[in-house]
Parts: sequence; structure tokens; C-alpha cells
Amino acid sequence: MTKFSHIDKSGRARMVDVGDKPPRLRQAVASGMIYLQPETIELIRENQIKKGDVLTVAEVAGVQAAKSTPTLIPLCHPLNITRVVVATKLLPHDARPGVEVTATVRCQGPTGVEMEALTAVSVALLTIYDMCKSAGQQMEIGKIRLLEKTKE
Amino acid sequence: MTKFSHIDKSGRARMVDVGDKPPRLRQAVASGMIYLQPETIELIRENQIKKGDVLTVAEVAGVQAAKSTPTLIPLCHPLNITRVVVATKLLPHDARPGVEVTATVRCQGPTGVEMEALTAVSVALLTIYDMCKSAGQQMEIGKIRLLEKTKE
Amino acid sequence: MTKFSHIDKSGRARMVDVGDKPPRLRQAVASGMIYLQPETIELIRENQIKKGDVLTVAEVAGVQAAKSTPTLIPLCHPLNITRVVVATKLLPHDARPGVEVTATVRCQGPTGVEMEALTAVSVALLTIYDMCKSAGQQMEIGKIRLLEKTKE
Amino acid sequence: MTKFSHIDKSGRARMVDVGDKPPRLRQAVASGMIYLQPETIELIRENQIKKGDVLTVAEVAGVQAAKSTPTLIPLCHPLNITRVVVATKLLPHDARPGVEVTATVRCQGPTGVEMEALTAVSVALLTIYDMCKSAGQQMEIGKIRLLEKTKE
Amino acid sequence: MTKFSHIDKSGRARMVDVGDKPPRLRQAVASGMIYLQPETIELIRENQIKKGDVLTVAEVAGVQAAKSTPTLIPLCHPLNITRVVVATKLLPHDARPGVEVTATVRCQGPTGVEMEALTAVSVALLTIYDMCKSAGQQMEIGKIRLLEKTKE
Amino acid sequence: MTKFSHIDKSGRARMVDVGDKPPRLRQAVASGMIYLQPETIELIRENQIKKGDVLTVAEVAGVQAAKSTPTLIPLCHPLNITRVVVATKLLPHDARPGVEVTATVRCQGPTGVEMEALTAVSVALLTIYDMCKSAGQQMEIGKIRLLEKTKE
Repeated sequence: MTKFSHIDKSGRARMVDVGDKPPRLRQAVASGMIYLQPETIELIRENQIKKGDVLTVAEVAGVQAAKSTPTLIPLCHPLNITRVVVATKLLPHDARPGVEVTATVRCQGPTGVEMEALTAVSVALLTIYDMCKSAGQQMEIGKIRLLEKTKE
Repeated sequence: MTKFSHIDKSGRARMVDVGDKPPRLRQAVASGMIYLQPETIELIRENQIKKGDVLTVAEVAGVQAAKSTPTLIPLCHPLNITRVVVATKLLPHDARPGVEVTATVRCQGPTGVEMEALTAVSVALLTIYDMCKSAGQQMEIGKIRLLEKTKE
Repeated sequence: MTKFSHIDKSGRARMVDVGDKPPRLRQAVASGMIYLQPETIELIRENQIKKGDVLTVAEVAGVQAAKSTPTLIPLCHPLNITRVVVATKLLPHDARPGVEVTATVRCQGPTGVEMEALTAVSVALLTIYDMCKSAGQQMEIGKIRLLEKTKE
Repeated sequence: MTKFSHIDKSGRARMVDVGDKPPRLRQAVASGMIYLQPETIELIRENQIKKGDVLTVAEVAGVQAAKSTPTLIPLCHPLNITRVVVATKLLPHDARPGVEVTATVRCQGPTGVEMEALTAVSVALLTIYDMCKSAGQQMEIGKIRLLEKTKE
Repeated sequence: MTKFSHIDKSGRARMVDVGDKPPRLRQAVASGMIYLQPETIELIRENQIKKGDVLTVAEVAGVQAAKSTPTLIPLCHPLNITRVVVATKLLPHDARPGVEVTATVRCQGPTGVEMEALTAVSVALLTIYDMCKSAGQQMEIGKIRLLEKTKE
Repeated sequence: MTKFSHIDKSGRARMVDVGDKPPRLRQAVASGMIYLQPETIELIRENQIKKGDVLTVAEVAGVQAAKSTPTLIPLCHPLNITRVVVATKLLPHDARPGVEVTATVRCQGPTGVEMEALTAVSVALLTIYDMCKSAGQQMEIGKIRLLEKTKE
């Protein structure tokens, strides 16, 4: 298509071509954890955290982060996602207590949405960290991974 | 499509699915008012406001805001809008004098653009407020509403 | 300070100088209304809106919009705001029923934060509009105005 | 300072006041891991990943994410950070091989920068994930935590 | 399509309609130069610039800028670009020594991507300027132009 | 200040420390050119360009770009700029006819604002390119350079 193909030699950073792939309905599900002290989980459940309603704010932040993925991750393709659900679950009785965040993202497009789902999870977890940090300092975020990736 | 359907139970904040809706040519028209003192309207008309050309800056801000709608409104879907026109009209002789802003937005997509039109109107009105605030303090923004919503 | 003072002649659009003003603790309070049908207000109160928890999502959107003000309003100065509270109040029994949004913004800086408070209110109201639009179409946003502006 | 103190009653979401805290020189250090297959680590070291130079792109993404923290995390305060360094370290021989990311952030301001450091780490890790995902699917992000927080 | 066609009279700022144009595979290639002192070019080649790896950071900044084009250029249409490559070339022996930046952008859409390519080039050049400015002050950016624009 | 100084070894990309520098009033002036055909300059002067009022839109875009500089240029420090003026001048009779753009930026801060001034100029020139591209294809952007940099 171009006579300037030599300019593609650079291997430093490229957004690879997805223009030839037909648009399909794609979905990805990702999840992650923030490990908290049981007392902090209790404060979240009772809505006693000073900054506000932790789980709703985290879910909103996750949805917005899914939309910001191509801005945050330099080589991600922009996509018009058609659905995002971020869900949170308190796990006070686990061996390692905490809050689990799961994100489901869908789009009709030429490439998958796993980065959108993983970004939604990461930012929702960071938001919980931010809102709870005055309540107790021993927090850790982990287990961020893809659960499922499908297309139709 | 997913075996993780249980994670959709959360009712806190969701970007609802529009992936099954076929793309159609959609248009929305919205308008709103900023109420100003007649002397301020005169200063705008004569281009005497210190910060610059109020109506052009407001129209530019409105167009850009239309494009930022999914960033601003948490549960709005990203859409590639194909046309935005923001128009302003001085109304110095109305019972309640002011400037009327109207925005027309079009897209080819699976859901409507009324939020884009309403956001364009709101931000154009806020821009007028900002540029005129040193000229006189009694301002109010109102009557922001959808005038028309169509699809083909 | 410059020998290029002639370039200031252009009157098209300028971010005026606030560099000489000493930083002070400044606060602004703004409010606005969205007019809704009483049944919609009831759905909000009972948390039955399909997109989620309307009032919390609107408050979060308002806080974030306060931080985005200099991006949205072209000639606004960037400021590091130190506090934002967006509050919502259901008014089902008013002559014109609806939801009232109030925003309080503070900063330590050289210029006031009224645009930040007004922008927070506007975007919170647009968010309520977006979340309720599937529930009933007769909505209008209005009465957006500054309630108080102080400095210490 | 205000006669509208009643509007602070809402507990849904607030950016708490830091306006009374004197600016101090603050620093935070955070780190995290992405677990990868040894072959993928080798491809990164030899700069053979198709999308480009993984570690440099990840470090750039982390620095930019530190600056975007108040946009991403809804209740975070905007701050003018004065220094960001994001460092990456290949750990192919660990019990659980992967890449470690560490971020150091400084500011002169009224509140700390731990969220900036944690966000830089998270986005750098997501960037590595994005760039390596075509090379091998078993990846997980974890151990994101604060290492140090100081002020002078 | 609308009965509000009169509102289009305003000539101040409009994002013109591209909604009727069929999506096609489009590509644009643009380039530009930053003129530098030969010693600065040598420092870049040897990776001795204090801020980091100049060419990789510039290429990443260019890719991200291509995605931000509709935010930066007020009347540009949002497009989901499907490929971006930004390449840099050291030219120490030219009559006017410097670094050449070339950007190739593709999309499947209703309008071309020349602004995306030109914006990628401009921001990559500004990034080189920023990273080299402590090393030597006589820099100039120029020759930013479109090399090729095609569609299939 | 930290026991993690080893993490600074990475030379890939760093936002260097400006935290120890005292805030001072700083100003930068930059300029650049877009070369156009004389007929296009005439269309701009007569406000006959279809997309709108070219010079005002370009000046607004330049002011906004100055504020976005730390987002666009990866290793730039965030600063609260206190003044931006972008001016445009038609030069139809020059040896190489075109439009000259000049930007003046001020801040009270620990580091200079030359990147803000250069970015404002670049984006204003790109905006002129975008608005005039349907009127005639031979355009080139050049001569982007710093004119003055001062502090008090």
C-alpha cells in the first residue's frame, strides 16, 4: 500500500496493524484482589470509610478506566467498547482476606478487549487502596489475570 | 457467551450492552440558555470581553466537549461522532435576556448521541460564564434540554 | 518582562495573567437542578435504575469534573484544588420536582474556583440525566448558579 | 468558612480537605511484579518482542501514568509531582520468574504521592502484559505494594 | 433529517459531516525534522542524554499523540486508528544536521488520517526537543509535511 | 532521602528532579510558521474557510495545548501555568507566504515553560493545517523555535 515501507524497520514501539481483521463481537473477563485487614473490610461493608462508598466508587473508576485503556497503555488500539461491568466482592473469611474485583468488557471490533478488562480491574483496585489507606496501612494488590477471552 | 454471568449481579454502576444493536445514522439536537445582564450581551456582541471572542471560543469548547462525553459521563458509551455544530444566539430583548446555545451531533453507531449534544451545550454555556464573569456577576445557566432525537 | 509585548494585541482568546496574585485559600459553592418526573425520583431513591446507583455515580462524576475544569473550559487556569464535595438531594415534593446538586470546591491558589464548582454541578446533573434517560424522557437541567465565593 | 456546611453531610464520595496542610517535600516508592514464562523474559531481554522495546515503553507508560493519577483515581488530589523514575528488572531465575517494576515519585505538596507511585507501577506492568501477550498467555500481575513513604 | 437546519448558519467552528462517506482503508505518511548540533546527535546515538533513551521515548510519544489527535485538534473527527508506526533517523551529516521523524497511520473509516500522522510527527519532535534541551540550546523544528495519502 | 537509590540506575526514561529548585516567575516565548498558498491566506482573512474562523480556533487550540503539555510530552513536569497568549499573523507578502503563530506562557514554578510555548505553537499550526486542508494541499509547517526565555 505504501512506497515508504522502509520506515517500518524501527523496532522501538509500534501499534501493530489490525486493519485487516474483520470486526467481531469480542469479550474478556479479568479479575484481581486487594488484600486488606479484616477490620478494613468491615468498615467498607458498613460504609464507614471517610472518603465515601468504596465499592461503588471503585466500580465507577473501573468502568471509566476501561474506556481510557488506549490512552494509558501506549501501544493499545482504540476501540469503541459496547459494555463494561465491574463487580466487587468482599472476602473477609479467605485465608488472605480482601476484596475481589472482576471486570467484563465487550466490543464489536477487530481486536480483543483483554487489556480493557485488566485495566478496569487494576484501577478499581487502586481506587479501593486510595479510599482505605487512612484506615490501615498493610494492603497489597495481586492476582490480576485474565479469566476468559471469547469471540463470536 | 460467558460462564461468569453471576458477576453481573452488582447493581452499582454498569455500562449497559449496546453491542447487539445495529449501527444506524443517529442525530440529536439540544439547547440551553445563559441569562446575562443586557450590558454583558452588548459587550459580547461588540467583542469587548477581555478574555476574547466569547461566541467562537464557546462554540469550539462545545465541539470538543461533545468528543469528551464518554470521559466525562461515567456510563456513556464511546462513539465516533461524525458531525458536531454548536451555534450561539444573542437574545438581548427576551423577557430574560441571555445567550442561547444549540448543539447538533450525528454519529453512525449503535446508540444515540443525546448526551453528546447536552454535554456540548453545557460546556459551551460554562465557557460563556467563564469569559463573562469579570464583567458582571448575575449569571445563571438553565433550560438545558433535548429538542430532537432521530435515527434513519 | 518581555520585548515581545506586541504579540499581546490579539483579542481572540487569552488566558489572562494571574501570576502576580498571591496564593490564598479560596472556596466556591455552586448548585443546580435536574427536573424529573416523580416516578423517576422514586426509582432513584429505591436504587432501581438499571445503570446503577444514580446519586453516587453522579457525585463521583462531579468530583472528577471539578478536576477536569481547565481541560474543558478553554481559558480557565489550571489549579491544584484541595477539596471537592458534591452533594445531591431528592426533591420529590417541590412545585417542580427533581434532584438538586451542590458542589463545594476549595484551593490554595491565585484565582478562584467558581468554574470548578459550576462544572462539577453541570457534569453531575448530566450524569443523572444519562442514567435516568431510559426511565422517562421529560427532563430538563437548570438553575445552575454560584451560591457563594470566599477567600481567606 | 461557609454557611453551607450542611451540604457536607453526603457520605457518598468526597475529595477530603488537604488545604490546611503545609507543603512539604514528599516521596513514595512502590513496586510490583508481572509473572512470565522464562522464554518471554528472554525475548524481552533480546528485544525480540514484535511491538517494540518492552522495558522502555513500560517505563515511559509508568511515568505518564503517575501524572494521570488524579484523573484515574476519582478521589485523589491533583499534585504537581517534581520527579518520577520507573525502573524495571528482569528476574528469570526467581522461583516465580518475571519482571519487577519499581517507581519513585516526589512532590512538594500538601499530601503524599503513594497513589502516584502505585499507579505508575500498575500501568507499567499492564504495558508489559500488553506487549508480551502475543508471545505467551500465562501471565499474572501481583505483589503491588508500597515500599516506602517519607517526608522532609 | 432535522427541522433545526437554521442552527447550522453559524460559521464560527464546525466539525463537518463525514457520516455519509463509506468506511475505507485509509493511510497517511508524514515527516518532519528537528535540527540539532552534531554533538547532540552523537549524545542521542550513544544514549547519553540524561532524561533517557531519546528515540524510543519520542516514538512512544508520537504513537500516543496519534491517538490523541481529535482531542488536540478541535475540529478533527474521532477515528479508531488501526496502526501507527513512528520511525526516527539520525542525520548527522546533512547540510543541516538533525533527526528525521516519519509517521505512518492507518484506519478503517470515513475520513483520512493525515492529521493523525502530522500530529504524531510534531509531538515526537517536541519530545526530542524536551529531552535534548539541557544538552544544547540551538534547536529548531521544521519541514513537517504530508508525504503520502492513500485509500483502498 | 531514600534507601532505594539503586532503582535510579535505569537510564531508559526519567522525569528529572526539580523539587529542590525554588519557585520563580518564568516566561517563554516561541513561534512557528505554516506556509500556505496566497489564495488560502486570503480565504482565512475573509473568514471563508468552511470549518470556521481559522485564527480564533487555532489560538484556542494553542492555549489548551499549553495546558496539556505534560500529558503529551512524556518527561515534562506538570506546572500550573498562570498565563497563555497565542497570537497569529497573516504574512501573504513574504518570500514564503503563510501564517506566523507566537505563544507566550508564564508560570510561577520550579522549572521553565519553553515546552508549553513550543507545544502551543505546534498545535495551533496543526489546527490551521486541519482547517485549511480542503482548500489547497501544498502546506508545510516549520521554523518552530524558542524566541525568549526569562525568569525573575
